[in-house]
Amino acid sequence: MAYLDHAATTPMLDEVLEAYVATAREVGNASSLHASGRRARRRVEESRERVAAALGARPSEVIFTGGGTESDNLAVKGIFWARRDADARRDQVVSSAVEHHAVLDAVEWLGRREDAEVGWLPVDGTGRLHPDALRAELAEHGDRIALITAMWANNEVGTVQPIGELAAVAAEYGVPFHTDAIQAVGQVPVDFAASGVAALTVTGHKLGGPVGVGALVLARDVAAVPLLHGGGQERDVRSGTLDAAGIVAFAVAVEAAVKGQQEYATRVAALRDDLVRRVRQAVPEVVFNGDPADRLPGNAHFSFPGCEGDALLLLLDAQGIACSTGSACSAGVAQPSHVLLAMGADDDRARSSLRFSLGHTSTAGEVDALIAALPAAVDRARRAAALRTPR
Amino acid sequence: MAYLDHAATTPMLDEVLEAYVATAREVGNASSLHASGRRARRRVEESRERVAAALGARPSEVIFTGGGTESDNLAVKGIFWARRDADARRDQVVSSAVEHHAVLDAVEWLGRREDAEVGWLPVDGTGRLHPDALRAELAEHGDRIALITAMWANNEVGTVQPIGELAAVAAEYGVPFHTDAIQAVGQVPVDFAASGVAALTVTGHKLGGPVGVGALVLARDVAAVPLLHGGGQERDVRSGTLDAAGIVAFAVAVEAAVKGQQEYATRVAALRDDLVRRVRQAVPEVVFNGDPADRLPGNAHFSFPGCEGDALLLLLDAQGIACSTGSACSAGVAQPSHVLLAMGADDDRARSSLRFSLGHTSTAGEVDALIAALPAAVDRARRAAALRTPR
Repeated sequence: MAYLDHAATTPMLDEVLEAYVATAREVGNASSLHASGRRARRRVEESRERVAAALGARPSEVIFTGGGTESDNLAVKGIFWARRDADARRDQVVSSAVEHHAVLDAVEWLGRREDAEVGWLPVDGTGRLHPDALRAELAEHGDRIALITAMWANNEVGTVQPIGELAAVAAEYGVPFHTDAIQAVGQVPVDFAASGVAALTVTGHKLGGPVGVGALVLARDVAAVPLLHGGGQERDVRSGTLDAAGIVAFAVAVEAAVKGQQEYATRVAALRDDLVRRVRQAVPEVVFNGDPADRLPGNAHFSFPGCEGDALLLLLDAQGIACSTGSACSAGVAQPSHVLLAMGADDDRARSSLRFSLGHTSTAGEVDALIAALPAAVDRARRAAALRTPR
Repeated sequence: MAYLDHAATTPMLDEVLEAYVATAREVGNASSLHASGRRARRRVEESRERVAAALGARPSEVIFTGGGTESDNLAVKGIFWARRDADARRDQVVSSAVEHHAVLDAVEWLGRREDAEVGWLPVDGTGRLHPDALRAELAEHGDRIALITAMWANNEVGTVQPIGELAAVAAEYGVPFHTDAIQAVGQVPVDFAASGVAALTVTGHKLGGPVGVGALVLARDVAAVPLLHGGGQERDVRSGTLDAAGIVAFAVAVEAAVKGQQEYATRVAALRDDLVRRVRQAVPEVVFNGDPADRLPGNAHFSFPGCEGDALLLLLDAQGIACSTGSACSAGVAQPSHVLLAMGADDDRARSSLRFSLGHTSTAGEVDALIAALPAAVDRARRAAALRTPR
């Protein structure tokens, strides 16, 4: 099988699974006062230090959560609520048009339920945000903006955003800036402190860690109203029994991903570049989407004119090739990608797109397998589409 | 070591950990359309069926979450919001005075932030709720109550509540009834449909499953506003990548716990009864808390007059005995238990209490170890307390 969907989820590293198992065999609730509890707490705190060190944060800034969606929701809703509580005029949110649904839908919910006014930053044809647009928003109503949220790198087309520049603009106006860095950590250099962001989302299963564990890195001076109330774990910002085994495994994965990032990026980008070159050769009319230079090393995203992405996906799947039409989280819903539309693509181009994402297990053989299967699949998908929509 | 803190967290069963590892080795996001994704989805849906069958629910009623705290928060806040959205007059919540903090704090948050009016049902001296009190609340303002939430069994003193009767009263008035059954599943018979509740919280790590995985069983006709927005997983009520490995492991644990419940309860209650008898013998002035008959099989809860529970805990810990002064989730916070206070205990009695909770790995040898260590520990704790608070 050729697994070209690492951006949806990537295999857990052996050392991560071993760390999970070793910790899971130790009983103890990290909130308990006895020796077993203290040992669990020690495991959690050591993991917090490892995650913090890997991400350029202080340990006290790492809040463990149940994953990326929770971290995004906590950042978006929690910081919005806290900021509006402190100043009722701050009822606006600025986000980008290409966010993952975990941010997008959380922001829209604030619009519907909390009467938040939402400003959506546009992207250019490569999916890239421009600091000037943010500056214009802030210049116009900076004193009413509670929060800015924009992803570090796009999960669909792979475009890496100028996060440092964006965060610097936000800082000029004193507005906290959250970034969903789920696709970025381990792929490109990510340093919380150096980036200047106030909050950063990371999750385990995109970087060789377990599903269901993630973190929100939250600067000490940024308040967030909790989504989950209870035992008061995690600075009272996120209650719930600490998943010591999952957290230890997550820390091992984050550390490994960050430590190996440069070597990984070089190796995987070479494979990816080969894939792109050969896809273009095999299907000359293909459109390569996203920023050609500033992109995630494992991401290749194309539109295949005249094809339905879903049909192409299933035809490739029948040949043992796993890929995606967009974010796995909204796969199955037959809608054109909001990311492609925001980049100026029309419905047809958006619907004809396919993402191949490489990762730590990717091989040249998998690229070969894709190239071998692709022309026939494109041909079939095209004929199927032509039949369905006669012109 | 004598681990007498199973109510805080109980060791993962070997078969559960094996199921986790086997599933974690399979790559695939359950929302992906390709073969790997469909396999992950199949694992999740099979697990949903197993959990549903074990709990007397329909598969479509099982919503997987990141654990008990999340399930409780989703039920309390989500159902409240949905009900008030449907009818603005429904701005009241009825809860009990002995809930876990995951419910208590979520309810109080609704009071503070959403101006919800909260009615707290009292308990008697054994920690037991009485349906009459609920009936009185409903008779007085049943048309304004959005939601009732009361736990199946108390995590501190082990009292099992008359959930069927309470749910029947709620049903007369058409008000959805949520129950936190975290301590109950696997300990006493729990059947979602037969109980008549509208929503039920269960979590993995209290019954031999993993931490960080749980479920909210939610009747099809009960709406809940999501806490976590995003990819639209889990009936659109709970977004976030499905943790296939965790969910499979959770299902194995739930099934095993429910299947073995009766035998487990007989065996563990016998150990517990022996423990209670011998603790009373060793420390005659001890007060046994909770319902003497209707209680969790593994729970023994005492007040030790003249002792500080925390000191006693640490002295026992030094002898290799792990126990708890209350819920692990609020351990470390030097406050008398709200549960004991609600039962009519004074501050001193509340502060002098200790919970021993047995579970699937408990042995007679652990009880022996406790009894061997207890008298000297009580003696020391008493002398320390006398020194600190001279009378």
